[in-house]
Amino acid sequence: MAGSTFGTILRASAWGESHGKGIGVVVDGCPAGLPLDEADIQAYLNRRKPGQSKFTTARQEGDVVEILSGVFEGRTTGTPIALEVRNTDQRSHDYGNIMDVYRPGHADYTFDGKYGFRDYRGGGRSSGRETTARVAAGAIACKFLRTLGITVRAYTRSVGSIEIDYGSFRMEEMWNNRLYMPDAKAARKAEAYLEEMMARKDSCGGVVECVIHGMPVGVGEPVFDKLDACLAKAMLSIGAVKGFEIGDGFEASRSLGSVNNDGFRMSGETEDKGLLFTDRIVKSSNHSGGTLGGISDGSDIVMRAAFKPTPSIAQGQHTVTRNGQETDIEIKGRHDPIIVPRAVVVVEAMAALTAADLLLQSMTSRLDRIQEFFGR
Amino acid sequence: MAGSTFGTILRASAWGESHGKGIGVVVDGCPAGLPLDEADIQAYLNRRKPGQSKFTTARQEGDVVEILSGVFEGRTTGTPIALEVRNTDQRSHDYGNIMDVYRPGHADYTFDGKYGFRDYRGGGRSSGRETTARVAAGAIACKFLRTLGITVRAYTRSVGSIEIDYGSFRMEEMWNNRLYMPDAKAARKAEAYLEEMMARKDSCGGVVECVIHGMPVGVGEPVFDKLDACLAKAMLSIGAVKGFEIGDGFEASRSLGSVNNDGFRMSGETEDKGLLFTDRIVKSSNHSGGTLGGISDGSDIVMRAAFKPTPSIAQGQHTVTRNGQETDIEIKGRHDPIIVPRAVVVVEAMAALTAADLLLQSMTSRLDRIQEFFGR
Amino acid sequence: MAGSTFGTILRASAWGESHGKGIGVVVDGCPAGLPLDEADIQAYLNRRKPGQSKFTTARQEGDVVEILSGVFEGRTTGTPIALEVRNTDQRSHDYGNIMDVYRPGHADYTFDGKYGFRDYRGGGRSSGRETTARVAAGAIACKFLRTLGITVRAYTRSVGSIEIDYGSFRMEEMWNNRLYMPDAKAARKAEAYLEEMMARKDSCGGVVECVIHGMPVGVGEPVFDKLDACLAKAMLSIGAVKGFEIGDGFEASRSLGSVNNDGFRMSGETEDKGLLFTDRIVKSSNHSGGTLGGISDGSDIVMRAAFKPTPSIAQGQHTVTRNGQETDIEIKGRHDPIIVPRAVVVVEAMAALTAADLLLQSMTSRLDRIQEFFGR
Amino acid sequence: MAGSTFGTILRASAWGESHGKGIGVVVDGCPAGLPLDEADIQAYLNRRKPGQSKFTTARQEGDVVEILSGVFEGRTTGTPIALEVRNTDQRSHDYGNIMDVYRPGHADYTFDGKYGFRDYRGGGRSSGRETTARVAAGAIACKFLRTLGITVRAYTRSVGSIEIDYGSFRMEEMWNNRLYMPDAKAARKAEAYLEEMMARKDSCGGVVECVIHGMPVGVGEPVFDKLDACLAKAMLSIGAVKGFEIGDGFEASRSLGSVNNDGFRMSGETEDKGLLFTDRIVKSSNHSGGTLGGISDGSDIVMRAAFKPTPSIAQGQHTVTRNGQETDIEIKGRHDPIIVPRAVVVVEAMAALTAADLLLQSMTSRLDRIQEFFGR
Repeated sequence: MAGSTFGTILRASAWGESHGKGIGVVVDGCPAGLPLDEADIQAYLNRRKPGQSKFTTARQEGDVVEILSGVFEGRTTGTPIALEVRNTDQRSHDYGNIMDVYRPGHADYTFDGKYGFRDYRGGGRSSGRETTARVAAGAIACKFLRTLGITVRAYTRSVGSIEIDYGSFRMEEMWNNRLYMPDAKAARKAEAYLEEMMARKDSCGGVVECVIHGMPVGVGEPVFDKLDACLAKAMLSIGAVKGFEIGDGFEASRSLGSVNNDGFRMSGETEDKGLLFTDRIVKSSNHSGGTLGGISDGSDIVMRAAFKPTPSIAQGQHTVTRNGQETDIEIKGRHDPIIVPRAVVVVEAMAALTAADLLLQSMTSRLDRIQEFFGR
Repeated sequence: MAGSTFGTILRASAWGESHGKGIGVVVDGCPAGLPLDEADIQAYLNRRKPGQSKFTTARQEGDVVEILSGVFEGRTTGTPIALEVRNTDQRSHDYGNIMDVYRPGHADYTFDGKYGFRDYRGGGRSSGRETTARVAAGAIACKFLRTLGITVRAYTRSVGSIEIDYGSFRMEEMWNNRLYMPDAKAARKAEAYLEEMMARKDSCGGVVECVIHGMPVGVGEPVFDKLDACLAKAMLSIGAVKGFEIGDGFEASRSLGSVNNDGFRMSGETEDKGLLFTDRIVKSSNHSGGTLGGISDGSDIVMRAAFKPTPSIAQGQHTVTRNGQETDIEIKGRHDPIIVPRAVVVVEAMAALTAADLLLQSMTSRLDRIQEFFGR
Repeated sequence: MAGSTFGTILRASAWGESHGKGIGVVVDGCPAGLPLDEADIQAYLNRRKPGQSKFTTARQEGDVVEILSGVFEGRTTGTPIALEVRNTDQRSHDYGNIMDVYRPGHADYTFDGKYGFRDYRGGGRSSGRETTARVAAGAIACKFLRTLGITVRAYTRSVGSIEIDYGSFRMEEMWNNRLYMPDAKAARKAEAYLEEMMARKDSCGGVVECVIHGMPVGVGEPVFDKLDACLAKAMLSIGAVKGFEIGDGFEASRSLGSVNNDGFRMSGETEDKGLLFTDRIVKSSNHSGGTLGGISDGSDIVMRAAFKPTPSIAQGQHTVTRNGQETDIEIKGRHDPIIVPRAVVVVEAMAALTAADLLLQSMTSRLDRIQEFFGR
Repeated sequence: MAGSTFGTILRASAWGESHGKGIGVVVDGCPAGLPLDEADIQAYLNRRKPGQSKFTTARQEGDVVEILSGVFEGRTTGTPIALEVRNTDQRSHDYGNIMDVYRPGHADYTFDGKYGFRDYRGGGRSSGRETTARVAAGAIACKFLRTLGITVRAYTRSVGSIEIDYGSFRMEEMWNNRLYMPDAKAARKAEAYLEEMMARKDSCGGVVECVIHGMPVGVGEPVFDKLDACLAKAMLSIGAVKGFEIGDGFEASRSLGSVNNDGFRMSGETEDKGLLFTDRIVKSSNHSGGTLGGISDGSDIVMRAAFKPTPSIAQGQHTVTRNGQETDIEIKGRHDPIIVPRAVVVVEAMAALTAADLLLQSMTSRLDRIQEFFGR
């Protein structure tokens, strides 16, 4: 079975291995007429590039994207957009020791079980490098959403147990530290904590938070293809993610109905939201995180993804070989002590792909609007 | 866009409204030859039926399932299995006051935005009653999985802040209390807490935990259709779910690589697991929750779903009417102070549907096994 | 694998066996706000009902449809519409002789091969009776299309070698004869031919032609999901169909480029077609059958489906039993000497489902129109 | 909406324009362990390459394929296989005159209608050049099928009105003439006819026939996803195809039940077909073309695709400009007077992709075989 395509109307079909010839993605279903060039995509790829700080691997991947199809005279044509990033740094000898040994926390063992053998060079298809394709596709989704006034913003909410303080939250601050934390003080503490991790040859995890702003009311399908269900799948499809929350998430399970319900009220403004539902109804709080019954309610869509610690650590770990011998392994080479900072843009990309796909799906929900669309 | 079908190979297409003629589901892709009768399905439906205790609504729905197709002489034929539960108790006058007023925490507002109008009787399609179809379909998935030695078990992990204690965990205990908690002491505390909620006309949430046991190695697709990603979507597709965890979940984000990685070792046993990967490799812990790189690793698949408090409460809440008038609403009628106990079997059903679908998908991953299958 | 769902945005999931409890279909993705009641669907079902003439089986099926969900106060709600036709005439003893013998031209043998056993009562799932579900779903698609000024009309083009003469073509004439031929003279000849077939205990085939009128320019996806490709699948999915043509079809393979190409010209009219492409460009001929590059070109979409002779004949035929014994079989019971007249409405239904689905898909092809739709 | 992906389990996602940077395809779901290298694919691409004879365009495209992912140490890994053919000959000035004028028989007009503008260079995405991706993907499907003893062979059945004579049919003969006709005499007549077409600046069509041999019983899904329905879609998805037949096709509509039904008998042989259905039941004729009820019956699957004449002709034709001016156009440049010879391998590719996909789907139809697969 396939599994390498994401989305229904806007579809991203990804390919590529860590140490193969490259990574790529075919984005089908992008509407025609969107201005797009390689710089639009490169800007997103640069945010996930390694080698930006002492907390990310020194490996210089380059990650230069090329658009191979679907764009003509600076605009998308409505046909598939093929994006490709050729691999340049393929020092596969760094990874030789994992050919016959199963790295704890990695997919080596399950790939062997599923496929009978595997491309062992740097994790092959299961390497975090596959997220390059997600980010490239997500950059297109983001640009599309912006033409409709919708923005997607992710940032680091916590590193280990160090959380940002919403009292001192400043979104722009995320660009001032290498951890993409929108709170300068928390960022400093987190950096110190990461230094400690590196000294101990250990690694840690964290949480990325993501907000979609400007989504019209009515996006998401009731029952199985709820907006939050699709976002959950998008987030858990990212390699190291182990948990997902929308709105208050697990905290809601400890709350009360009288607190958790978001009341409705009329906004004082006369401004027309001008979308699927044109009125001035707003929620007085947003515990739900922007959805009701799986459908966007016009308020910010707020979600979180929990990342496990980087599995590659330089400490010795117990494991076995392909042939069933117990052994120990120390993962050599360049590895980030934390995945989170580089994953911020991946979260943004996956959220944007999901939001754009469901937004397009929502266009067929009402006969009156379809008749209007076709001039009848 | 559709959105009422779940699964790729094993597909459930659900329909029905709270106060319409009934609820049903068409299960397509179920392999031929599975013994199946209405009692198999009824047993699961009875577990989600209301009216079982003072914590669930007194409404007597009956919920008698009828198999309309796809079963012949006691076995599935491989063609679509249509299941139907006719509604019997349709006291719609209970719900008259919500015709023009948006209930906080419900999907009334977003349905109106998406579709222009809605079936306002008891929530219509967005009512929790739609889970009847999920449970009916899930019962078939569970029976199919059992023929392969795979079991799916869900139970209540917490009610509000009251969690089960794994020290006193006894699976069978869940059948001794109406909250389906596998810990007698926690159940008693939770019942007292719920009494308090009811007295205060308030409601609360909780967490359901689910374990899939016996899954062979190799189920789940790398990249987008990971086993955990599909499970996350399955769980978040349930109306009141706001969070999902696999394995250590959010706790993993606060852990260390040296702790969170599950080492491998050889099991002392000579027993052959006899599935996709036949050997004796086991993990010495299960922080990952049974998957590595989105593919099952042979250990228990452990997940959690966080449920928000029941949104229908008898307290006054601020809201607005369809016409934009601010008003207050008290939800009358029979409503559970907590969704969790009735949702346990829904979680089980959705986990089983996901597991069965991905298991079937995994059959095509290896050429050698395909050749063997076709006798070549 | 499933296979019982048709369509991507407008989706029909069908179920039911010839002699089971009933036949049904769940139509998901129908836009909200379409006026719909059972009479709309019954009118189509009545056209495929048997027992209307001496050329169709005397079996009185009734075929009374019930809408179980998705319609509220006379309009579709945007959620799944479940339709059901309970079987009333289940004289299964008529079919007892086929339990262990493979009927030539039927799917008995392949069902046994695929599933290991089969519901042998009247063909079970492979019976022509499954088309009831197609017609019910198609009736909804037709009604939806009419709200956009699009009509779908099928009729009998030929019975055996007797073709209609386009010189004496009168669409209304199809309602004056039981063969649905829009040419009175051809109909009379065809009726005489069918009398002869019946006398000889033989059966014959024919061709159904179908025209979609009023389709806007731009429907159908280039490359794999071409409008004509999807129509071809729709037609060949009908049990007895062995061939498909769009426009000049096989005749085009014997034509010349200079003849087959349809020139463009400006229509004299000032009327605005008012759809995806607003102008007055028309084709001066329609050899292509309404598509160019798989996309509708605004002219009539003209297709044909070739039906094989009814396989059930009262003559002796050589065959084998399940256990590998050679034997002879005469099919007893009531069988039409020709499938075509009852299939006319099935062709119409499948064409409408395809057209409606691709029309809805086409709404997302252009950014400017999407921005307009969302008021941006 | 997308539309550039073909298949469900074995999926090909194609991209590329005639005069863009290249053409490519991502093949997902190919089982792991299939020996594969670029030469396997190049051999198929060479068969569709232009410039092979005076009847195909002189344009030297090169068409050198590169495998970018999914193959490791000479075998497929089970993950997506990205194939790419860079364009080398991009003489776009040849096509300048079609920027503002709609070529009759081409998709210029419908692309403009659908997308608002188009890549006018050589037809862009709608160029026959997109079939490069189909052939590359199909080469993989063919190789996979061969490992199961299944072969797919296409050849030219007719050129204009000149048909092969099955009396003098010799499959190997197809390699001896540039028209791929398995009948030397017909090939000579066809060549003379094509010379005449070229002299008259006209073009002609033809029919390609394709046979799948060795397919086990049980492939294809009843109702909507019939094997023949999926093949019909596959064929009609090829740009110039206007008709499809399986088995006797349209001729069946003029036949009799007593003739058209294929009787069953026991084969004299003791040989076990060893597939889904292990026995010695065979059909005594093959009017059905290898399917019954949409499911393969073990006999050869025989289909035909009718191709229209090449639309690009050097004669003057009436048309209009983008701006609504009536004008005349003569298509300059290098164009084949017939599409058929180069399309033979495209038909083979599409048939193979369809057959492989449905074969893989068929693995989940029976519980007993699934239990056996998982060792239960």
